[in-house]
Amino acid sequence: MLTAPADLRLALDLVGIFAFAISGGLVGVRARLDLFGVAVLAWATGLGGGILRDLLLGDVPPVGISEPRYIITVLLAGLAVVAVYPVVVDLGRRRPRLRLGVIGQAVKYLDAVGLAVFSVAGALKALILGAPPLACIVVGVLTAVGGGAIRDVLVGQVPEVLRREVYAVPALLGASTVVVASRLEVLSVAVVWGAVALVLGLRITAIVLDLQVPTRLHLPTL
Amino acid sequence: MLTAPADLRLALDLVGIFAFAISGGLVGVRARLDLFGVAVLAWATGLGGGILRDLLLGDVPPVGISEPRYIITVLLAGLAVVAVYPVVVDLGRRRPRLRLGVIGQAVKYLDAVGLAVFSVAGALKALILGAPPLACIVVGVLTAVGGGAIRDVLVGQVPEVLRREVYAVPALLGASTVVVASRLEVLSVAVVWGAVALVLGLRITAIVLDLQVPTRLHLPTL
Amino acid sequence: MLTAPADLRLALDLVGIFAFAISGGLVGVRARLDLFGVAVLAWATGLGGGILRDLLLGDVPPVGISEPRYIITVLLAGLAVVAVYPVVVDLGRRRPRLRLGVIGQAVKYLDAVGLAVFSVAGALKALILGAPPLACIVVGVLTAVGGGAIRDVLVGQVPEVLRREVYAVPALLGASTVVVASRLEVLSVAVVWGAVALVLGLRITAIVLDLQVPTRLHLPTL
Repeated sequence: MLTAPADLRLALDLVGIFAFAISGGLVGVRARLDLFGVAVLAWATGLGGGILRDLLLGDVPPVGISEPRYIITVLLAGLAVVAVYPVVVDLGRRRPRLRLGVIGQAVKYLDAVGLAVFSVAGALKALILGAPPLACIVVGVLTAVGGGAIRDVLVGQVPEVLRREVYAVPALLGASTVVVASRLEVLSVAVVWGAVALVLGLRITAIVLDLQVPTRLHLPTL
Repeated sequence: MLTAPADLRLALDLVGIFAFAISGGLVGVRARLDLFGVAVLAWATGLGGGILRDLLLGDVPPVGISEPRYIITVLLAGLAVVAVYPVVVDLGRRRPRLRLGVIGQAVKYLDAVGLAVFSVAGALKALILGAPPLACIVVGVLTAVGGGAIRDVLVGQVPEVLRREVYAVPALLGASTVVVASRLEVLSVAVVWGAVALVLGLRITAIVLDLQVPTRLHLPTL
Repeated sequence: MLTAPADLRLALDLVGIFAFAISGGLVGVRARLDLFGVAVLAWATGLGGGILRDLLLGDVPPVGISEPRYIITVLLAGLAVVAVYPVVVDLGRRRPRLRLGVIGQAVKYLDAVGLAVFSVAGALKALILGAPPLACIVVGVLTAVGGGAIRDVLVGQVPEVLRREVYAVPALLGASTVVVASRLEVLSVAVVWGAVALVLGLRITAIVLDLQVPTRLHLPTL
């Protein structure tokens, strides 16, 4: 059993919120939003997945709107993006291609961290609230992909989860690991972090391979 | 009264989920998503309307994420689209116009089936959970149009419900039929299927007329 | 304390629903939707923010789908837009630039009214349902920006809240005023209308300044 499930879930949530919020802010910079738009997008991306999770589990008001530590985390992430905003804008003026490439890469890796942490945190919370095992897995996946999907829809892009082969699958494996471990009564802090590492490893491997062999691994498309 | 409301609602839900999931998968093929994107879009389209319904009625976790039969149905629909994917891709390579036309038609008819079934199933569930009559009608309509709207927004299109004259209106009539019949205490299995047939008939008539007289029936636009 | 909180909240809600519904209908006209699409978009814009608020607070079914006065208000707004539709279409045929300018201005001011009213009404309802202070503020902001964001996403635009500097901030101040007044036990009808006036004044000032000095006030963008 988990020795400190509440603390552990809080830690997972805060890491995921921070990573997703930064990714949202950077997508906002790339979409040429102004400072306020960047901050609002950071907010929606960081807290969207957790709010969706809590609505699905009936835990209202969602912690994403009522827990001060969550709001402070997303504000700090917003401030971090705002602080780096002039640097990125300046970089963009001189070398536009570099800017888009750097931001695109940073968004992918931060998104991977959020995906890993939220798939596990979402499944954990569903387990603790007594949801059926299947629901726990689905809630984990939706928590993980929700924030990024909201971010992409808001700036008029097709969400990453529809465009990347290995995006939802790692989240599915991460959430399933936690749920299966709970059923087998072997859920521990080590299993939780192992599941996070599994998702992160798979997703980052996919990002790296996609970068180096851009066409080979793609499935046949139209 | 309904002799077997639970079985009847399950049957309606499964038909609607399957039809919408196939339509979502086909829209994904048309939007040139890869295999995984197609499967995820099938999932979101098939289960989105029902999840929205359950959130509105406070029935959490929604059956769309906790009921194994629903998940299996959407997986089967996803597999069906994936099986037909190479055929459609191949068709698209040789005759792109034919591909788009065939997929577009299939999506419209499947969407009509989902619309018909979900408008009635949504209103029925709201009635059984004791929602006020007006809420039952609105929930029915939102269940019916929700999955398709989510599908269209995710691939960056303006939802069908905003672009087609006779889209929300049949769903409104279908949901209202069930709710009025319930108030008059004449709700039966025959009424339920009659309401489904009414919506389907109206929607298909609209699709066929729109195809044959493409400009005549349109209202004045800018 | 408020002498008649229920009546006051009803009045605020009805004003907000009407203003947002008209703005939604006008955006639909500008996006060249047909009559039905215009009506559906009016509906989604007018009721979307309140439905989101009620889902976040667990007050289901949301009043936006069950309260007849709300539905009637949105229907009246829809009828108003439909009545003015031919006039606007005719205007657009003869002077397209004028049409877009006039509609764009009307949408902004109506949106400002909805923003002001819903930020206060959302926070009030959250207070009455006993949500924590922070959640009350966030619910107020989300109620205020939700309908407009749904409207913009449905027609494929980046939501106003991401594109305008002074959009979310007035809503934040309005909701905060009500929550702080409640904590200080000085919440009155005068404070409520004062908060509405504050949001409206700030937002309209921003609209007017933006129009007159279109480039000066902008933050550096890429």
